[in-house]
Amino acid sequence: MSLLDYFRSKKTTQTAQTAKERLQIIVAHERGQRNSPDYLPAMKQDIIDVIRRYVPIDSDQVTVNLDNKNDNLSVLELNITLPDDKR
Amino acid sequence: MSLLDYFRSKKTTQTAQTAKERLQIIVAHERGQRNSPDYLPAMKQDIIDVIRRYVPIDSDQVTVNLDNKNDNLSVLELNITLPDDKR
Repeated sequence: MSLLDYFRSKKTTQTAQTAKERLQIIVAHERGQRNSPDYLPAMKQDIIDVIRRYVPIDSDQVTVNLDNKNDNLSVLELNITLPDDKR
Repeated sequence: MSLLDYFRSKKTTQTAQTAKERLQIIVAHERGQRNSPDYLPAMKQDIIDVIRRYVPIDSDQVTVNLDNKNDNLSVLELNITLPDDKR
């Protein structure tokens, strides 16, 4: 199953249940063998700021999960659920 | 299998093969039932600009895939492979 298939199956189910507008952002950073810095924590806020240019979001509509899988893989996940009605 | 497990299994394999530094960004936009605009094409360049604040990347190191799965689901995928040696 490809990653895009995964998104598709997951999202279709959620649509049927709630029909809300959602944004999901996943950033996976694999640092390889060199000791490069882990910049995902800082990048997180910048990405939220980018999204705010396009759609109004409140902080309480954003759930953030930052997971350091091991020494060289970090995964940042942002889930944003927008209200059905525009404000 | 959770989405994070998927990343883990996929990335671990790639690490063993090449040990390069990689960034993968997935943005899934589910528009629900209202006809909200599809802003992923415009958001794409802004996200690349954010990444450039943290790590130097050339345009030829970025592969972009924008997939409109159906009327209300768009998925933007950015894959960035960085050189092993800092320049």
